[in-house]
Amino acid sequence: MKKSLGANIIVGATPVWIVGTYDNAGKPNIMAAAWAGACCSEPPCVAVSLRKATYSHNSIVQNKAFTINIPAADYVRETDYAGIASGKDVDKFAHLKFTPIKSDLVYAPYIQEFPLILECRLLHTIEIGLHTQFIGVILDVKAEESLLGEKQILQMEKIDQFVFCPGARTYYKVGDYIGKAFSIGREFAK
Amino acid sequence: MKKSLGANIIVGATPVWIVGTYDNAGKPNIMAAAWAGACCSEPPCVAVSLRKATYSHNSIVQNKAFTINIPAADYVRETDYAGIASGKDVDKFAHLKFTPIKSDLVYAPYIQEFPLILECRLLHTIEIGLHTQFIGVILDVKAEESLLGEKQILQMEKIDQFVFCPGARTYYKVGDYIGKAFSIGREFAK
Repeated sequence: MKKSLGANIIVGATPVWIVGTYDNAGKPNIMAAAWAGACCSEPPCVAVSLRKATYSHNSIVQNKAFTINIPAADYVRETDYAGIASGKDVDKFAHLKFTPIKSDLVYAPYIQEFPLILECRLLHTIEIGLHTQFIGVILDVKAEESLLGEKQILQMEKIDQFVFCPGARTYYKVGDYIGKAFSIGREFAK
Repeated sequence: MKKSLGANIIVGATPVWIVGTYDNAGKPNIMAAAWAGACCSEPPCVAVSLRKATYSHNSIVQNKAFTINIPAADYVRETDYAGIASGKDVDKFAHLKFTPIKSDLVYAPYIQEFPLILECRLLHTIEIGLHTQFIGVILDVKAEESLLGEKQILQMEKIDQFVFCPGARTYYKVGDYIGKAFSIGREFAK
């Protein structure tokens, strides 16, 4: 039996990303975001939504650039804090002992300690409601070499990523491997 | 040491959702999508990107409505198939023995067998490149009653959801609980 929960943002697991920007004074800043995901293969693009009230929102509008920093579960506490505190009040890089590195291709900092980084140039800004969605073109992906397997393919098992569950507002690790995409469903094609 | 992987859609874990639509003849259809996520809290909205070449793309444009069906890991093979086969060629509902149910609030079918369903009305259409992003307002969330805990809060552990890893093109279960959001990071606020 299904129960109706009404108009709610209860969508199961979402990724948790940290968005990196420089503020007006050139100070590196970060915030956590879970309204986020891939949105196009060619050009490769991600979408991340921020409330207009956030300090990072204005930085993206100004600089037309941001990084996506994908945290390992070791940093779940720091990531959570980056979604609680505002860059208006705190230097989150310094407070969390993260090292800001200037991106190679865009004007935005990334977190050296994180395993997977996307350098993004702003492509579209969509005003939806409480949140503004920023679509960014991925100009470069940077991954820790230790995470790469054969043919430089990123191995999910080694990132030790985690996801967020809206509603319950809880974090879970990405767990066991269950199969190869565009492959395990082929049994139904017979 | 970080290795540059260039302009690629390597973003770590993404959700895997099934999009439900009616085609021009009123036949229920589904397809899997991983370029997807939440994008606004108020109104509650999701974004899902489809290639123009897909059969479902036209159905969303025509009907301005779709469902999001969130699969349990039990259905990872069926979900994978729903991303391989086209509704142009196959009645995927019949082939996968899924039961199509007409949504209450929008003109789109959902999969009775799936644990979590979102009924969405199309709000924005953004042409990005290979993919078109559809932003839909969630008009209703339907969850299996057995998944709900206290205060009707959806319990992630019980959905047994899985995620997709682009690049490696692999599926992983959502795994162990690691903490409460907007809470475990507060130790840094002291």
